Amino acid sequence: MRTIWSLLIIGFLFNAIQVPCFAAPNEESHLLRLMPWPVSLKTGSGQLAIDTSFSVGITTAGDTHLQKAVSIFLDDLRRHTGMLPLDFAITDPAKAQLVVSSERPSKLVQDVGEDESYALEITSSGATLNAPTTLGVMRGLQTFLQLVEITPKGFAVPAVSIQDQPRFPWRGLLIDSSRHFFPVDVIKRNLDGMAAVKMNVLHWHLSDYQGFRVESRRFPKLYEMGSDGLYYTQDQLRDVIEYARDRGIRIVPELDMPGHSTSWFVGYPDLASGPGPYSIERKWGVFDPAMDPTRESTYKFLDGFVGEMAALFPDQFFHIGGDEVNGKQWDANPKIQGFMRSHGLKNNADLQAYFNQRLQKIVAKHGKTMEGWDEILRPDLPKNIVIQSWRGPQSLADAARQGYRGLLSSGYYLDLMSPASQHYQVDPFADGAASLSDAEKRRVLGGEACMWAEWVSPENIDSRIWPRTAAIAERLWSPQNLTDWSSMYERLDEISTWLDAYGLTHNANYDLMLKRLAGSVDVSALRILANVVEPVKGYSREGLATTEPSSRMPLNRLVDAAHPESVEARHFSALVSAFVSGQIKPGTEAQLRAMLLQWRDNDGKLRPLIDKSALLQEVAPLSQDLASLGSAGLQALDYLASRDKAPEDWKTQQLSLAQQAIQPKAQLLLMVTDPVQKLIQASAGETPTDLPIPNKAAE
Amino acid sequence: MRTIWSLLIIGFLFNAIQVPCFAAPNEESHLLRLMPWPVSLKTGSGQLAIDTSFSVGITTAGDTHLQKAVSIFLDDLRRHTGMLPLDFAITDPAKAQLVVSSERPSKLVQDVGEDESYALEITSSGATLNAPTTLGVMRGLQTFLQLVEITPKGFAVPAVSIQDQPRFPWRGLLIDSSRHFFPVDVIKRNLDGMAAVKMNVLHWHLSDYQGFRVESRRFPKLYEMGSDGLYYTQDQLRDVIEYARDRGIRIVPELDMPGHSTSWFVGYPDLASGPGPYSIERKWGVFDPAMDPTRESTYKFLDGFVGEMAALFPDQFFHIGGDEVNGKQWDANPKIQGFMRSHGLKNNADLQAYFNQRLQKIVAKHGKTMEGWDEILRPDLPKNIVIQSWRGPQSLADAARQGYRGLLSSGYYLDLMSPASQHYQVDPFADGAASLSDAEKRRVLGGEACMWAEWVSPENIDSRIWPRTAAIAERLWSPQNLTDWSSMYERLDEISTWLDAYGLTHNANYDLMLKRLAGSVDVSALRILANVVEPVKGYSREGLATTEPSSRMPLNRLVDAAHPESVEARHFSALVSAFVSGQIKPGTEAQLRAMLLQWRDNDGKLRPLIDKSALLQEVAPLSQDLASLGSAGLQALDYLASRDKAPEDWKTQQLSLAQQAIQPKAQLLLMVTDPVQKLIQASAGETPTDLPIPNKAAE
Repeated sequence: MRTIWSLLIIGFLFNAIQVPCFAAPNEESHLLRLMPWPVSLKTGSGQLAIDTSFSVGITTAGDTHLQKAVSIFLDDLRRHTGMLPLDFAITDPAKAQLVVSSERPSKLVQDVGEDESYALEITSSGATLNAPTTLGVMRGLQTFLQLVEITPKGFAVPAVSIQDQPRFPWRGLLIDSSRHFFPVDVIKRNLDGMAAVKMNVLHWHLSDYQGFRVESRRFPKLYEMGSDGLYYTQDQLRDVIEYARDRGIRIVPELDMPGHSTSWFVGYPDLASGPGPYSIERKWGVFDPAMDPTRESTYKFLDGFVGEMAALFPDQFFHIGGDEVNGKQWDANPKIQGFMRSHGLKNNADLQAYFNQRLQKIVAKHGKTMEGWDEILRPDLPKNIVIQSWRGPQSLADAARQGYRGLLSSGYYLDLMSPASQHYQVDPFADGAASLSDAEKRRVLGGEACMWAEWVSPENIDSRIWPRTAAIAERLWSPQNLTDWSSMYERLDEISTWLDAYGLTHNANYDLMLKRLAGSVDVSALRILANVVEPVKGYSREGLATTEPSSRMPLNRLVDAAHPESVEARHFSALVSAFVSGQIKPGTEAQLRAMLLQWRDNDGKLRPLIDKSALLQEVAPLSQDLASLGSAGLQALDYLASRDKAPEDWKTQQLSLAQQAIQPKAQLLLMVTDPVQKLIQASAGETPTDLPIPNKAAE
Repeated sequence: MRTIWSLLIIGFLFNAIQVPCFAAPNEESHLLRLMPWPVSLKTGSGQLAIDTSFSVGITTAGDTHLQKAVSIFLDDLRRHTGMLPLDFAITDPAKAQLVVSSERPSKLVQDVGEDESYALEITSSGATLNAPTTLGVMRGLQTFLQLVEITPKGFAVPAVSIQDQPRFPWRGLLIDSSRHFFPVDVIKRNLDGMAAVKMNVLHWHLSDYQGFRVESRRFPKLYEMGSDGLYYTQDQLRDVIEYARDRGIRIVPELDMPGHSTSWFVGYPDLASGPGPYSIERKWGVFDPAMDPTRESTYKFLDGFVGEMAALFPDQFFHIGGDEVNGKQWDANPKIQGFMRSHGLKNNADLQAYFNQRLQKIVAKHGKTMEGWDEILRPDLPKNIVIQSWRGPQSLADAARQGYRGLLSSGYYLDLMSPASQHYQVDPFADGAASLSDAEKRRVLGGEACMWAEWVSPENIDSRIWPRTAAIAERLWSPQNLTDWSSMYERLDEISTWLDAYGLTHNANYDLMLKRLAGSVDVSALRILANVVEPVKGYSREGLATTEPSSRMPLNRLVDAAHPESVEARHFSALVSAFVSGQIKPGTEAQLRAMLLQWRDNDGKLRPLIDKSALLQEVAPLSQDLASLGSAGLQALDYLASRDKAPEDWKTQQLSLAQQAIQPKAQLLLMVTDPVQKLIQASAGETPTDLPIPNKAAE
């Protein structure tokens, strides 16, 4: 449990907590639930009360975005305090506790690179938030919200002085609505979460093999035949775009082409390079269908379609995908081969480059800037396009050197189930990018967390996005030298709970899914197991599947409910690490014993639930492994307590057990295996070593 | 944990489980999570699998309501199984696992008394659902859903044969959107809950002193000035009405008059009997403002207004409120007094009767049937009006004898925080109504659970409505002789979890509110206390308030988070009752000891949370009381185990502690006090007695 900040700031009057302190977290820096952490923060003394009469004054007249931002802020403040609509108000700045000013409105259509800086000053008598633009005010209001705490005197914010601005102008989240469809309410609550951690781009992946999700009035067969009825109407899209804009978030649509486009061809088979008919793809992977880049009718279609989309989506950028064309349809089509010969196109990459050049002109004609994945980068495209890298920082650096702006997504793939710490250490300026010139560095716009949707449904998508995305948001906003995982995790655990107030379901649906799995109201035994497992990492889930995965496969197993990162395993691991390295606080051993004992005895309690549920039968071996690890860990503690070294044969046997326990079962990994191995090794007088997690580095 | 039904139905082939069995619950009847319990149920052998290829066939062509009902059913089935949109289908009846037929469509505008009966036959090879009307199909589909279980072979429904029909045609829930406002999503998820337990009327209390919540285009100042901007647009209302209709639920609007009407007068002060100006009422209670029944302009206004509402709300019934006119404005207005004299109206009741006669003609002119609370009942009104009784079954019986149709709400007030068992024993045919003739009994249409909204917000309203309303729904649907509380509670606990799938927040928001109260992620110690307290009963919260309650008062205290009925206290109480009466199963004493020990030791763990939260300071005495009760209970168990009678002075001291512990603190009651007293008494060789719960019988 956190000690409250108010006890600790007594006696400090605006002590600087600059970022360098963060590398060695001190007491003060731990106590504020801020994420992303601001560039500069000084704590003061005292606090400003937030009671029912709290009010905000706006000194800037006539900025409707600002007015709306403050209204949304007050709604959010009500969520976080349990206040009601009649509490709080927008009033005369002379009477307000918080006075908000922006020098100028942000642009009507939000643009990349607009100033998002702000200055927030809070004393016990009042607060001011000043920013050059309305966007900066939005960011500062989120910081204010995160500072709200219950204290012995009521809700309050501590006296602080904050100067803040983002490191990168593009801090995005990709949501793939094609492989599975996510209704508008799912998108909106995730926009709330994004705003809370100061992200500013929703990259909306709206078409792929498995579904075309946008209503097109010009080409209605796209959604009528390509979506199974699961698509966004234009009214819904406009509503979501406005919702995002009100929170300082741009929406960049991605309509993936010329590959990843089977769903287009169901209604319009003439667009494709192979003979039809086509049906919506139900499986996962890379498939053959691709647009025919050699026919003028393709470009005529795309001119009409891009024109319609350009009017619907106000953002400057239009993402054309452009990734993973396997070329098989092109190879098999004699007319296309003839076209390539007659146009001097040596290979499929040349053909795609030809397509991209044509498409870029169409996109530009409709007033948009083209964006695409790594593959589109060819020197024959104009320098204003933006490259999104799924290949890595080196690819991003290469693009920057060639004069192209770019975004990093490699290392931020949420579907790979990596721990937040792994994402947190991925930096757009790492590797090859470190040696870029300042001018080249400015071309690195930022990055995007990517929520590819093979294995997510509306029920569990939030749990794949949150809280890990908050760590990526911090990487993209806060200074590069902010790299302390333990501070990050401490705040991440808090932010995870704090995000619940927005209706995000990453925590709420966990219990609901466990109860459904067990068909039981009391799932305490299942929760004990679920709390220490994680889905397998990287792309190994496909490989471990016993039936061929498809979009009709229910996502209702334990692997779908389990969090991508086990908080309990992390805590246990930290306790063990401290214990085996001799940093033993009073109670550490008792804590370890209690956990191990619970695991050892859990299998007997879980068994009746497993026996009655077809969905749980696959987790029986995991439950047995957990029991074995509990026993092994307890024995190791006994050896350590007795100061007798554990016998060699016992050690060998237990380490082999650990080797077996870390193998994926039911597409899950038992995450306490590694720390138990460390206890076993320590009890045998060995230096503990890490147990490699299968596929951990697959990303 | 429940034993699954499938193990138990082996060997039974359509064994009748008629309702009389229920009075003495047997193994079979416990195992089906059905609520309301059907009129006739026979279990068969085997089960029908529900896998991704499950499909429904509809034999009745051209009934769009039926088509939609089946679509909604499939969506609900997906929620309860974790299946996805591409799973399940509506297909050719010849190929379908479930074949649905209705003899005729239900009426376009749903009417009171339409046939809601159905017959559901499930065998291992298929299922049929037959009903005279589409409404009956809807009810039967809900039964099918409640039968869905995870089994060792996957999701399935057991072989059953069910004949079912409701006891009363009017099974309602009143939601008061005036005292606090509830956005459309709150209403919709509660409609889902209502449909799940076969309720068929949402009585929507849309105006009162504290707010006018309907957009009126004819009289826009009603909502512009009377709602603080918190109102339903006509588009929203039409949307909710359709949503309800799709689920077989009628919406009856209540616009309360001539009293309970301050919010009308803010925009239209000339309607009132006293001089203005008026402002929206912020406090709770009965207030003076009332319409002026003596002016023709009042009736002209109401003619226009009722006409507009009659067109907006399709239901046959229009609820005019009519309750609690204190008459003070009438007494104080010389013109009104003169009118009464000149018209021979002897008192205010006569004047209100005059108003009601005039209003009834207006309501009838616009094609509607008038409904109102007890007070409107006067023999001079036509017999087709409906009386809603907040006074009790006797009042309802009196109305029936006079030829009026009526509804019972007395005994079903959810805001009084009574246990489900108390609501469950309230029957519209109790007391005076028992002696009604059959014809008179038919005038008793049913009843309504009432969610008055002084103490509820969008955040906690679900927890006041659910799961207790499911017990009331069963009372109004199932046979009168179904009265076994323990069976009811066993199913209620299951239904509570099952309702989570609809996004109802009665369980999900509990933790969220506790975490906000504590400002902490780890609230285990607070949860231990919260799990055994309940809000004070009846109307005592107002009396115990330290500051005058109002609609601006945040509802963010422990009393607002605590469930109206503590499941844990009920379980502990049942264990103690069994224990002191000598029905000791193995493990009972250990269970009791574990609970008491947890309570005894909890105060030390909760204290740090209390110390840092202004909102928790008021619960410190409760926490101390819980610790004392834990100690006392443990000592009592020790005496019982030792077979030494507890000493007299110890007993006296502990009983006085219990007397003190049962007193309300922080507007909460410590619900384990009574069973701990029983342990103390038993340990001293006394016969255990009940400890009266303050205000328990206030309803």
